[in-house]
Formats: sequence, C-alpha cells, structure tokens
Amino acid sequence: MPLAKADLARLRSLQEKKHREALGLFVVEGEKVVGELLAAGFPFEEIYATDGWAGRAASPFAAARRGTESAPYLTTVTPAEMARLSHYPTPSAVLAVGKITRTQLAPGALNRGLTLALDGIQDPGNVGTLLRIADWFGCDRVLLSPDCADLFSQKVINASMGSFARVTVHTTSLAEALGGVTVPVLGCDLTGADVHTLKPLRDAVIVIGSEGRGISEAVRPGVTQYVTIPKFGGAESLNAAVAAAIVCDNLRRAPAR
Amino acid sequence: MPLAKADLARLRSLQEKKHREALGLFVVEGEKVVGELLAAGFPFEEIYATDGWAGRAASPFAAARRGTESAPYLTTVTPAEMARLSHYPTPSAVLAVGKITRTQLAPGALNRGLTLALDGIQDPGNVGTLLRIADWFGCDRVLLSPDCADLFSQKVINASMGSFARVTVHTTSLAEALGGVTVPVLGCDLTGADVHTLKPLRDAVIVIGSEGRGISEAVRPGVTQYVTIPKFGGAESLNAAVAAAIVCDNLRRAPAR
Repeated sequence: MPLAKADLARLRSLQEKKHREALGLFVVEGEKVVGELLAAGFPFEEIYATDGWAGRAASPFAAARRGTESAPYLTTVTPAEMARLSHYPTPSAVLAVGKITRTQLAPGALNRGLTLALDGIQDPGNVGTLLRIADWFGCDRVLLSPDCADLFSQKVINASMGSFARVTVHTTSLAEALGGVTVPVLGCDLTGADVHTLKPLRDAVIVIGSEGRGISEAVRPGVTQYVTIPKFGGAESLNAAVAAAIVCDNLRRAPAR
Repeated sequence: MPLAKADLARLRSLQEKKHREALGLFVVEGEKVVGELLAAGFPFEEIYATDGWAGRAASPFAAARRGTESAPYLTTVTPAEMARLSHYPTPSAVLAVGKITRTQLAPGALNRGLTLALDGIQDPGNVGTLLRIADWFGCDRVLLSPDCADLFSQKVINASMGSFARVTVHTTSLAEALGGVTVPVLGCDLTGADVHTLKPLRDAVIVIGSEGRGISEAVRPGVTQYVTIPKFGGAESLNAAVAAAIVCDNLRRAPAR
C-alpha cells in the first residue's frame, strides 16, 4: 500500500524544529544511527524502510522495544517513496520516527552526580559529540541552554553515535538551574585554575561555553570556580567538546573522595 | 584589469588534490582563515580580494610576510570574478594561494619532543582539529600517514583554526617512521593501560588510529605501549581528536621528568 500523501508531508515537515515541536516527533535516517539507537533500546514510534533493510538489520531491529521483525510500526516503502520521505539528497534505507520527550529537572538534582551544562553551543555536531563525551564519562545528565542546537535535529543525534539514547538531557535556562546548586560549579575558560590541580569530584557541574563567546554573562554568577587546561603551544583555544572531555577526564582521574 | 581566463582555470583547479600536487599550490578562502594564517605569519604567494577586504583586513594583512597594504601579491577582483574563483557556492571576500612545502623527517627526529602520529584519519575536520590540539599542547610535530585527509585541503586548514601555520607536519609511512624510534610509542586504543597511570613524558610518540579501524596492522609493531582512557558510561568510543587531546593532557600533566 503506497504511503498516504498526508504521511509524506508530515514526515518531511519534521525537518523543521517548529514542526517537530508542534507534532512532538523527530526523525533520524540511516542504517548506522537507527541501528545504534535500536541497539540502545530507543523506543521508536514508526520505522520506514526499503525492502532490503528489515532483513539486513534484523538483529538491531529485533532488539527494539516492540521486539519482532513483523512489528506493527515497521512500514516497508519503495526506494521512490523513501526518496520523497528523506530529509537528505541521498536517501538511506531506513528512516525512524521518535517521540520528543522532555523530563523536568527535579529540584536539587544537580547536587547529585556529574552534570555537563552546555551554554550556547550552537553547532549541532559539537552538541552531539558532547553527548557522546557525557556518555563515555558517565555524566548523570546534560543541560542544554535554550540557544544550543536542537537536541532533536538529525545532526545532533547522528554526531552522538547512539549516546542520544543513553544520556539524560534537560533543555533549561542554565542561570535558573544553577540557582540552588551547592556542589562545585566549574566554568571552563582561559583564565581559571589549572585543571590538573582539581581534586576528583563525584558531584559537580561543568559549564562549557561556546568557542566564540565563552560562558554567557547570565550564567557566570552561578559558576563557583573557573578552570583552564594548561597550554604549551600557540593555539588560541580548544574546541568546546575537546575542552569538556579533558575536564571530565581530570574529574574522573582518581577514586572520588 | 580583469583576471585572465588561465588564472581562473588554474585557481579553480586547485580544488582537486591532483592539481594541487601538480602545481605545488593550495587555496584557502574566507576572512577568518586567511586572517588567522596571515596573523600566524604564513607566507602566501597570491591573495585575491574584493574591494572591501583589503581595507577591513588591514591589520592581519599588514602582519603578513611582505608587510605592506600595497603588497604586490594582492589582486583586487570584482565580486563576479570572486564568484568564479571560489571553490564554494557562497564566495567570500578573500581567497589566498599558498605554496605546498614539505619537509623531510630527519633521522632520529622522533626521539626528541612530542610527536602526534595520525594513522588513517580520513575526516578532514578531524585532521584539522588534531592539528589545533597538537598546537595547543606544543607537540613538536605531527605525522600523517598517506591515507589521512590531505593536509592542503581547505577543510583541514579551516578546522585547524590557524594551527596549520604553526605546526610542523610530515606526511610519511608511519611504519617506516617508527622504525628507529627509541622513545615510548603510545598507541591509543580500547584495551591498553589506564592513561592516568602514565608518567609525564617529554619525549614520546602518540599514535591515533581512525575511529572505525583503529591503529593499522602495519603500524602496530612500532607501538611500545597501548593506553586507554577510562570509561564510566555507555559510549563505545571517543572521537579520535578527543582521545588524542586527553592523552596529550595526561602527558603534559606534571613537570616532565
């Protein structure tokens, strides 16, 4: 049965954030990313695939929530239909639709565990890479300021390499979220204390600003200590994701106190 | 005087590596990257700019080797000419041409200082970011295996944020280059010793493989020790540049012995 025009229009509209928000849905495409998210147990709402995919991808697909190869949410489409569904010039074999869910940040939550707070990171590749870093280092949550790249854009999800499905993310005003925090709030910049002098911390917030603008004025009052990665050469700065990873590695360096 | 057709064809041909190699020239475009490289003292051969640029960019331009605003190598072009010169759909205000230079790796060079050796890193953005990291941590040189992204592609140079002009790079067979090395050769992978147990090293080679394939078989015999970044969460791997930066930060952690 060919895809209804209304479905085509709906799925294509999800390229834009405003339509994603209105419908509460997002799209990812590609065998790699869909496979990664299925393997991580992400509960997709709908999957559209050309004939070949369902067979080839039997194993990650079988690992999905609804569990069987004949799951009702898998729709087989023709390559021509997929070309019309796809958000890219080169369509892939599979496109999956997920529900946008947002969890409220519980009061006091930041006082337990490691939080990575991203302040105005607009490049979606960077945000995705930062999710992957948060996942590697076992951060308990990631905060995105509202002016970060949209968590539900394909570029962010692709760059996260599956970590999108494993990391708890809250989009929130960082200034407000940092209000009642009693654990150390470390701001990463070029003038702080040597990160090598940090004691390992089990409970802390790490604030990462954008490469261009650094940590924003509104967020600065919430920072309790600035930290810097020692430099030995000529580069003016490090990429935001690289800096975040180094700070995480230093915090995780020894058994936590 | 309008640009000669031959010049247009020559400059446009530099999009492709084979033409860059044949002519011994490469191109970078954009006020940001050209400004960064001029500020770092990179000796361009030719600069093409629309009217506005030479004035706006007086200060980095004046910092260039040939030093004056009327330097003979600056050609003012019309926006229409720039659109034809540019390698991009959206031309910028300035395009600069540099000479490809390659320095031979001297025998025994790797036994002094810190070397970052990239094994099959094909993504040009990653190679550029790795140059920036090598620059930040004061690496004495970067080695690129011949199957890495081309150093003289615009994407590599752009991502290096000016570090292209400051870091010494050799493209060479890593297996051969590691042949006579007597200092520690650290291979970054997922099964090595905890990087936190490393003693700081002033003289060492760090080998970074591609995310997909890791360190290649031919290079492995040259590695004296594998190191791993401790993981606390679910991500399968870290980006190659992130991993390299963390290893560099650990080696630079304390006063070198």
